Amino acid sequence: MEKVKVAVNGYGTIGKRVADAIRLQPDMELIGVGKTSPNYEAIIADKKGIKIYTVKDNLGKFEKSGIRVAGTIEDMVKEADIVVDTTPNGVGATYKPLYQSLGKNALFQGGEKADVADISFSALCNYDEAKGKKYIRVVSCNTTGMLRIICTMNKISKVEKVRATIVRRAADPKEVKRGPINSIVPDPASVPSHHAKDVLTVIKGIDIVTMAVIAPTTLMHLHTMVLTVKNKVNRDDIINTFLNTPRIILVNSSRTTVSSTAEIIEVSRDMGRVRYDIPEVVVFEDSIYTNGNEVFLMYGVHQESIVVPENIDAIRASLGLMGKEESIKVTNDTLGIMKGYLL
Amino acid sequence: MEKVKVAVNGYGTIGKRVADAIRLQPDMELIGVGKTSPNYEAIIADKKGIKIYTVKDNLGKFEKSGIRVAGTIEDMVKEADIVVDTTPNGVGATYKPLYQSLGKNALFQGGEKADVADISFSALCNYDEAKGKKYIRVVSCNTTGMLRIICTMNKISKVEKVRATIVRRAADPKEVKRGPINSIVPDPASVPSHHAKDVLTVIKGIDIVTMAVIAPTTLMHLHTMVLTVKNKVNRDDIINTFLNTPRIILVNSSRTTVSSTAEIIEVSRDMGRVRYDIPEVVVFEDSIYTNGNEVFLMYGVHQESIVVPENIDAIRASLGLMGKEESIKVTNDTLGIMKGYLL
Amino acid sequence: MEKVKVAVNGYGTIGKRVADAIRLQPDMELIGVGKTSPNYEAIIADKKGIKIYTVKDNLGKFEKSGIRVAGTIEDMVKEADIVVDTTPNGVGATYKPLYQSLGKNALFQGGEKADVADISFSALCNYDEAKGKKYIRVVSCNTTGMLRIICTMNKISKVEKVRATIVRRAADPKEVKRGPINSIVPDPASVPSHHAKDVLTVIKGIDIVTMAVIAPTTLMHLHTMVLTVKNKVNRDDIINTFLNTPRIILVNSSRTTVSSTAEIIEVSRDMGRVRYDIPEVVVFEDSIYTNGNEVFLMYGVHQESIVVPENIDAIRASLGLMGKEESIKVTNDTLGIMKGYLL
Amino acid sequence: MEKVKVAVNGYGTIGKRVADAIRLQPDMELIGVGKTSPNYEAIIADKKGIKIYTVKDNLGKFEKSGIRVAGTIEDMVKEADIVVDTTPNGVGATYKPLYQSLGKNALFQGGEKADVADISFSALCNYDEAKGKKYIRVVSCNTTGMLRIICTMNKISKVEKVRATIVRRAADPKEVKRGPINSIVPDPASVPSHHAKDVLTVIKGIDIVTMAVIAPTTLMHLHTMVLTVKNKVNRDDIINTFLNTPRIILVNSSRTTVSSTAEIIEVSRDMGRVRYDIPEVVVFEDSIYTNGNEVFLMYGVHQESIVVPENIDAIRASLGLMGKEESIKVTNDTLGIMKGYLL
Ligand SMILES: NC(=O)c1ccc[n+]([C@@H]2O[C@H](COP(=O)([O-])OP(=O)(O)OC[C@H]3O[C@@H](n4cnc5c(N)ncnc54)[C@H](O)[C@@H]3O)[C@@H](O)[C@H]2O)c1
Ligand SMILES: NC(=O)c1ccc[n+]([C@@H]2O[C@H](COP(=O)([O-])OP(=O)(O)OC[C@H]3O[C@@H](n4cnc5c(N)ncnc54)[C@H](O)[C@@H]3O)[C@@H](O)[C@H]2O)c1
Ligand SMILES: NC(=O)c1ccc[n+]([C@@H]2O[C@H](COP(=O)([O-])OP(=O)(O)OC[C@H]3O[C@@H](n4cnc5c(N)ncnc54)[C@H](O)[C@@H]3O)[C@@H](O)[C@H]2O)c1
Ligand SMILES: NC(=O)c1ccc[n+]([C@@H]2O[C@H](COP(=O)([O-])OP(=O)(O)OC[C@H]3O[C@@H](n4cnc5c(N)ncnc54)[C@H](O)[C@@H]3O)[C@@H](O)[C@H]2O)c1
Repeated sequence: MEKVKVAVNGYGTIGKRVADAIRLQPDMELIGVGKTSPNYEAIIADKKGIKIYTVKDNLGKFEKSGIRVAGTIEDMVKEADIVVDTTPNGVGATYKPLYQSLGKNALFQGGEKADVADISFSALCNYDEAKGKKYIRVVSCNTTGMLRIICTMNKISKVEKVRATIVRRAADPKEVKRGPINSIVPDPASVPSHHAKDVLTVIKGIDIVTMAVIAPTTLMHLHTMVLTVKNKVNRDDIINTFLNTPRIILVNSSRTTVSSTAEIIEVSRDMGRVRYDIPEVVVFEDSIYTNGNEVFLMYGVHQESIVVPENIDAIRASLGLMGKEESIKVTNDTLGIMKGYLL
Repeated sequence: MEKVKVAVNGYGTIGKRVADAIRLQPDMELIGVGKTSPNYEAIIADKKGIKIYTVKDNLGKFEKSGIRVAGTIEDMVKEADIVVDTTPNGVGATYKPLYQSLGKNALFQGGEKADVADISFSALCNYDEAKGKKYIRVVSCNTTGMLRIICTMNKISKVEKVRATIVRRAADPKEVKRGPINSIVPDPASVPSHHAKDVLTVIKGIDIVTMAVIAPTTLMHLHTMVLTVKNKVNRDDIINTFLNTPRIILVNSSRTTVSSTAEIIEVSRDMGRVRYDIPEVVVFEDSIYTNGNEVFLMYGVHQESIVVPENIDAIRASLGLMGKEESIKVTNDTLGIMKGYLL
Repeated sequence: MEKVKVAVNGYGTIGKRVADAIRLQPDMELIGVGKTSPNYEAIIADKKGIKIYTVKDNLGKFEKSGIRVAGTIEDMVKEADIVVDTTPNGVGATYKPLYQSLGKNALFQGGEKADVADISFSALCNYDEAKGKKYIRVVSCNTTGMLRIICTMNKISKVEKVRATIVRRAADPKEVKRGPINSIVPDPASVPSHHAKDVLTVIKGIDIVTMAVIAPTTLMHLHTMVLTVKNKVNRDDIINTFLNTPRIILVNSSRTTVSSTAEIIEVSRDMGRVRYDIPEVVVFEDSIYTNGNEVFLMYGVHQESIVVPENIDAIRASLGLMGKEESIKVTNDTLGIMKGYLL
Repeated sequence: MEKVKVAVNGYGTIGKRVADAIRLQPDMELIGVGKTSPNYEAIIADKKGIKIYTVKDNLGKFEKSGIRVAGTIEDMVKEADIVVDTTPNGVGATYKPLYQSLGKNALFQGGEKADVADISFSALCNYDEAKGKKYIRVVSCNTTGMLRIICTMNKISKVEKVRATIVRRAADPKEVKRGPINSIVPDPASVPSHHAKDVLTVIKGIDIVTMAVIAPTTLMHLHTMVLTVKNKVNRDDIINTFLNTPRIILVNSSRTTVSSTAEIIEVSRDMGRVRYDIPEVVVFEDSIYTNGNEVFLMYGVHQESIVVPENIDAIRASLGLMGKEESIKVTNDTLGIMKGYLL
């Protein structure tokens, strides 16, 4: 198979995972990554044999650190069929003119404003609409988690209303300068939080309000959600639907004793998952509760990895490589993404 | 004024605060506290000139620590008109037979089952019903916070439905053995959490569902709440009602830059409050949001102190010392409890 | 008594405490504080009736926040006899030209380089040398802690060598953006850390090496120290000397059950100390251990308040208001600073 | 090769890692694991095809959880040539009579008292002395870390004195009930801590004093150490010796930007290590500092995995399977244990 050439610009938490995922795809080739600082992630990329491109001004710094550089980020973009931009919040937009001037398709991440792209994307929700779009924005980790749940629930009964609380991990594990150490921080103090609006960039016509707070933890986000659906639904139907939906997994806390985000991560470590990544949304089965037309649930979102399969699918949607079902299947198979019970 | 004799059995986080509060009441006298372990809290009680009573078996331990003991807990109860039981979860119930056999009124805390007492209590909600009751249970910190909001909102328009998420502080500051250090823990993983049921022990006829998670912080709980009220309400009406309700205070995050539980505590420290206690519920004004008949808000609950004024009022209700408004006023005045804006 | 006019420039963690302390001195008058951002600390200063001065550009911001401003920082400095500069790290140095041009004495804090001032200061060590100095730098919280111990030990037997490990609190309680959340961070990774050098700015001729790491806590620093003294010393002599030295207090962990920085803070709260401040160094008596000419110990340093009495004394030293013993006594009395056992 | 039959009794943090390691050894066969609670770790063992043995009373519980059980722990021990006991602190000793009565060799962990075994063990220090010993105790994670450094330094110049501070991780990542959340806890408050004594169970004749504190983190311990050696040593010699010693790795913070325990773990994740385990001691190269006969350094200890290779080597020593160098080499090769630079 002729492989499409993918460049990843920005090689941090998301970029390094997307780069590794691309290297596992049968229809893609990673041509290199863009990186501005010669930090340990750059050293590891180099050790893995990944080509590193940087900005002209930083060539000297890389040389000094003994990290091989293949050229400038512009050189890299030129060679690519598509660029996955995983630079920090807001930086992606500043790169868009480059991608445009060189006529390249590009993906952006949730840290960018929605209007950076032609469409905001979540594979289970709107893969088909994204087909052939030149610029696609993969929504943020929290929004991806919510959309997976909402779009799956929609298959059982139309979701009319969503009220969710997002308890955000405050920082990624590697971010040693970010706090808080001992506080809960409304984020923002006003309601609704921006997450509701972000959900609406992908699916329309839902009455959704979100509230968000930051908690001093690094492992996963946790959401509590109340959905109001058109027709009364049955708890078992929800469980069965979730069990049959890849990228959603269930954990039964009373049967398995897994009762926290830390223990979910521990299971992932014990299962030998690379970086203990969990790209699936992890629903606490015990929390699924129905009350008339309302459905309650709690689930965890592994912020570092949940958008990785979304990026892979978005590449295929943008370049028209595969249809929805096929792309999702290939992505899941190559990345070891599960459905069913975690344990 | 003839003062009623109050004993506090269990001198820890709650007990030491209730004891201090009793000493500030014009109509009460603290006759002593019950304490089983000769720890630093016992040493401080002794230094403050508070009489300490213990169980027979521990007299020796106290003597060895140089802490004066006035007698056994039974001696103390005999002398009292009423006992405030602030022993750990479940221990209160084991003391009930003693209080009964000596014919003493008693208050219990939220860590006991509701049926330990004749009524569960929240001053703003059901003071009058508690009048003359021999055994009263002051509900837990989280339940107290929810009830203050619900009963106050009820004055504007009948509250029909409540959906709340409770982000619990994992431990009190002094509890150095309790975690988690880095995890979010559904508590419990099943929905609804027991808090909903606890609210219903005080006010009936509300459709309430709660979900709770533990976060690794010691300072305050934080709740996100959605109330559905009978008639569409106006944001300004809610704010004005809150501003006129003692034991509820507002903080405007955008005007004051106070944006977290840690900064609320910092303000309390700067205001010179003893132990930085905040017995008021602290509502983020920015979070108050109305959408049709729904009201959204976020507020903090200082777990260590919120039930202190409730205990003082419950003593008066049980012994019929004062009417609702008078008791609440005296309690608020003596304890420096505010209404209006924190800042 | 004619009071000296003191201005405090920079009203944050240290500045607000120094301002409060000045207001308690019989020989000082707080003429105002310099503040650049109209945050909650400014609102509280205003409520306390403290005059606020700011930079010209920010007058509008303060007005908008409804905080009264008395003039510019330059106006304030003009009126003062001495300025205590408590602006952030490095900012103090940028103000020095202003203080100089107006001919004012000034104190700086440990976040400034040593050469900003004529002398680095620690009251127990070098009060007399600082007499009449126009510019004095009060050393940092960690250095102040180490110096109190070293200078006190010096009275028993000459300290020849110090090897210390500093486990730093990562952020102050109010600093909700600072981490880490879950990491230990060598600070710096190289040895010796700058603290050793900072100690030498106050006392000469000691062979001192320090290593420092950051831990995810906000309450106190904790030091482990090994001192080698000229003559073999006796554990009891050390304890007795400490017990007779104000600004050092002992806590016996096995007798009082106080076994952590959190419990030290809890005791301070229970004792009703304002903001739970502990300007004394808190030595774990249990940790004092001698082995030949070596002395081992562990102690806590409350970073937010330990330098407050030092600043008060430095004002007196700079302006020649009192001799060492008298100043220290007045400062201790007005601020409630103890010697002996915490409990 | 005829494989020796190894049983692992206690399948938690250490046990599951030792079990996995045994399965990678050419000369060992894992015959099963002893497990008392049917928790998620048991479910995973079952999924991995590991035979589970339990105590008679718990057979029902396992059955109810759907976890297959192969028999009782006694059955398992009977079948084994050697048992690695990785039950919780103090439980190992209660199993010793069983191992003795069945005539089986056994290893114990650092949570047991030294006298549970014939010898305390650290591969780099005293492999040869442990040869043929029926009962061997693998010392704790912190002691293992210290011993690797001390015994390696001994090869350059005799270590005469060690002064170390141990900043302990408070809990393992999975332990969501353990704190503290926001405190530093001397552990114990008295000096010396037991770690010094534990080092002396393996190597004699060193003047060692340790002080230990707990910090609220789960990732790694961090030690600061001062060694006094017989002859003045050169920083480069130390670095070169470390670089040539397997089970010790260096990280240069200024070159790689890895500046914390969290970033060390991040590198391990990026390198694809299973469970991000780091059985090597990780020395901050920047911290290595010499001053006359003193050597200073700081290093991290991954508590969950550092004793795993030690257990494998101890099996071989006990059963006389291989000599020291060969065993260490096979263990390192099979477990991917490095020497040199982390990056
Ligand atoms: N971390 C998460 O939890 C998470 C989850 C979902 C989405 N996102 C989104 O992904 C994007 C990337 O976030 P991240 O967490 O991976 O950030 P990161 O800081 O870990 O990585 C960003 C990378 O971009 C590089 N970079 C910085 N400036 C650059 C420039 N001018 N040109 C090229 N490269 C540059 C940095 O060196 C770094 O390697 C953001 O939009 C973020 O909102 C993050
Ligand atoms: N801490 C909170 O946040 C909080 C908030 C609201 C309600 N409560 C409730 O208040 C009650 C007390 O909790 P706490 O946090 O103050 O606990 P705590 O552990 O701080 O204090 C309990 C005290 O009771 C003493 N004690 C233990 N056993 C005793 C016995 N047999 N006889 C007499 N005294 C005994 C202990 O020495 C201790 O002083 C519980 O029901 C709890 O659920 C606690
Ligand atoms: N916080 C501690 O633990 C601690 C302990 C000892 C010493 N110190 C030292 O004290 C000094 C102040 O630190 P802090 O923790 O109080 O900081 P902070 O940030 O809490 O307070 C600094 C204050 O200065 C004000 N400010 C900022 N820029 C200013 C400017 N240009 N002009 C006037 N005011 C300005 C800020 O508004 C703030 O109020 C630093 O040198 C620090 O190293 C801090
Ligand atoms: N966790 C660490 O950081 C660490 C590091 C080095 C050494 N150690 C030592 O290793 C030993 C084990 O510690 P851990 O952290 O793995 O503990 P753990 O609690 O994670 O695992 C202990 C296992 O033993 C099982 N168990 C409990 N009681 C049992 C019984 N009666 N019979 C059989 N199995 C039983 C438990 O189910 C659990 O699976 C201790 O001696 C500890 O001191 C631990």
